[in-house]
Amino acid sequence: MDDDAKEQRNPAWWGRRAWSLLSAVRARAPLVQCITNLVSMDIAANTLLSAGASPAMVHSLREVPDFTPRCDAVYINVGTLSEDWLPSMRAAASAGRPWVLDPVAAAASGFRMEACLELLALRPAVVRGNASEILALADRSIAASSNFKGADSSHESVNAIEAAKVLSLSSGAVIAVSGAVDFITNGEQVVGVNNGVAMMQKITATGCAVTALIAAFVAVEPSDALVAAACALAIFGLAGEIGMESSKGPCHSQDAPH
Amino acid sequence: MDDDAKEQRNPAWWGRRAWSLLSAVRARAPLVQCITNLVSMDIAANTLLSAGASPAMVHSLREVPDFTPRCDAVYINVGTLSEDWLPSMRAAASAGRPWVLDPVAAAASGFRMEACLELLALRPAVVRGNASEILALADRSIAASSNFKGADSSHESVNAIEAAKVLSLSSGAVIAVSGAVDFITNGEQVVGVNNGVAMMQKITATGCAVTALIAAFVAVEPSDALVAAACALAIFGLAGEIGMESSKGPCHSQDAPH
Amino acid sequence: MDDDAKEQRNPAWWGRRAWSLLSAVRARAPLVQCITNLVSMDIAANTLLSAGASPAMVHSLREVPDFTPRCDAVYINVGTLSEDWLPSMRAAASAGRPWVLDPVAAAASGFRMEACLELLALRPAVVRGNASEILALADRSIAASSNFKGADSSHESVNAIEAAKVLSLSSGAVIAVSGAVDFITNGEQVVGVNNGVAMMQKITATGCAVTALIAAFVAVEPSDALVAAACALAIFGLAGEIGMESSKGPCHSQDAPH
Repeated sequence: MDDDAKEQRNPAWWGRRAWSLLSAVRARAPLVQCITNLVSMDIAANTLLSAGASPAMVHSLREVPDFTPRCDAVYINVGTLSEDWLPSMRAAASAGRPWVLDPVAAAASGFRMEACLELLALRPAVVRGNASEILALADRSIAASSNFKGADSSHESVNAIEAAKVLSLSSGAVIAVSGAVDFITNGEQVVGVNNGVAMMQKITATGCAVTALIAAFVAVEPSDALVAAACALAIFGLAGEIGMESSKGPCHSQDAPH
Repeated sequence: MDDDAKEQRNPAWWGRRAWSLLSAVRARAPLVQCITNLVSMDIAANTLLSAGASPAMVHSLREVPDFTPRCDAVYINVGTLSEDWLPSMRAAASAGRPWVLDPVAAAASGFRMEACLELLALRPAVVRGNASEILALADRSIAASSNFKGADSSHESVNAIEAAKVLSLSSGAVIAVSGAVDFITNGEQVVGVNNGVAMMQKITATGCAVTALIAAFVAVEPSDALVAAACALAIFGLAGEIGMESSKGPCHSQDAPH
Repeated sequence: MDDDAKEQRNPAWWGRRAWSLLSAVRARAPLVQCITNLVSMDIAANTLLSAGASPAMVHSLREVPDFTPRCDAVYINVGTLSEDWLPSMRAAASAGRPWVLDPVAAAASGFRMEACLELLALRPAVVRGNASEILALADRSIAASSNFKGADSSHESVNAIEAAKVLSLSSGAVIAVSGAVDFITNGEQVVGVNNGVAMMQKITATGCAVTALIAAFVAVEPSDALVAAACALAIFGLAGEIGMESSKGPCHSQDAPH
């Protein structure tokens, strides 16, 4: 184990790194172009703003040549994919900026899976999905690989770790698998993040929002997407924990009414 | 009056049915495809999530063949209708799943009215609108009928009851008319729901959200859309009453400032 | 100085005008068609509803001929501009109703700037932007004018006043420049509005929302767009001040964690 790896076993190292990256986002206000779904644009924008980044929801193909090269990172999310948005996604992913992919519901249709695989080939710095999405992507993108057999039966994030490692090696992207514990891997190293609260699964677009935040962290730490992704997930989870403390949340009583 | 009808005159019967259907939604987490407007996707998604259902905002025509047959119900809302979304709406409505229509502002244009009538012919299980929308639809869809004359002058939900009954008989759909009191009819029986608070009219997309909830209730009770719609409206109204108690709401003072 | 101008130097005059216009919006519930961006439709709708206006998010070109003439005002916002929405914007701006333009990120691309200039030529009653947007528009739209040199270096609203005056004279629109202090000009008179809180810059779509509110105020005071715009900005800023008092807001601690 080299010194770097030894240091990273120290939780305090991660706390310092996460704080330092969040401080860098606040200080540099990276411009993040978001080509994202119609459900969660305001939520992603507010997440970026709250971290100090500068969101730009710009999706027209006509604007990519002028605008994308000026961005510090690009965030692409296929949540409400349609044929007319796909060319912009391809163009923005190909503009030479670090970019992050959220393959929402990758297995919902053949059309969506093909689009995700096509985008994956355009070398995102990070792919963030839940276990089902990462398993589905891995299953399809490395179907020929002997290292891996699709395992759709269980979708806890821990079960997707091996798939994520193989997918990372085959795609060159850092793969982040969200769940009760988040796992982030570059194919060799695996980092676990244990922040967040279960309530976040009950609110739409928390996944989309944290992927946007990963893009902002990658913008200020493009040379280490593994650390950037892990720290963004930790900070977002912590924000959820703070929110849970200060909010009663929507109540979900299991008791019958009187 | 048969036993069933007698039972339904007992308010406690409705309370038990509403709780039982909400519990079924929580237990089965029905997958509800939403092809809805650009204003309220997050609100509809969060409404479905809060009830325990699983929302999927999927609107591409390319995804309907793969995805819609796997859904437990479909929700179609024409709030921000455009020509390129209409084919997906038609396809999803024709996919053999129970589906629910929200004919937002049906009378806003000839284009919108024609689209609503075309969708109505695809046999929704439930149509939920306000009195103006139901009156406009009834006026157009059964213009030739001698049973009904358009009555646009007054738009209280009570004035739309007769129109709703005729529209229900001609379309085969359960018609739900929202208002201070909601009325739901299958053309013969009429059920009134007296939940909710006036503040809900002052918040965008509460109508769209409750129609999404109706789709979730229809998913778990497809054989009785009248009961499903009435219970969803009651539960949503109750949620509004609880929200009103715990929130001061946006204040709307009528006093001049000093 | 004539009597009118003298009166307007009295802050109490403005307070009375703002209250009177807000009361007129509440009383008349003007119908405001919004062709706006995908990020903030619900926020704009709720802003209009909270002021008593009636929002209609209708963007299909097919609906403009039937619907726009029935509206009291039109609000057009290019935040998530795409080629397929531009024809509707042009048509609605040309429908003979008073209308208001929000040139979001006008300088983001050549495509967007051309669209803004084309819309500007369709005589909006008011254009509301931040200093960068107004400076960019003025720089391009009056590039040939000897009165003005583009000044992109500084983007405080006060630095955009001269550009706004020239832009107002060349376009015929009232120009509102948002910032810590908002400035509104018809090319001759300049009004400053000193309401609002800095937190509003940290929340997405507050700019889009206030432009929607300006459209509602223009609907009830079409003959004096300068006063309508200034009063809408003041009322919106006051609402932000009230919100700030009653909310702890998202915390943005600058202290390192322990």
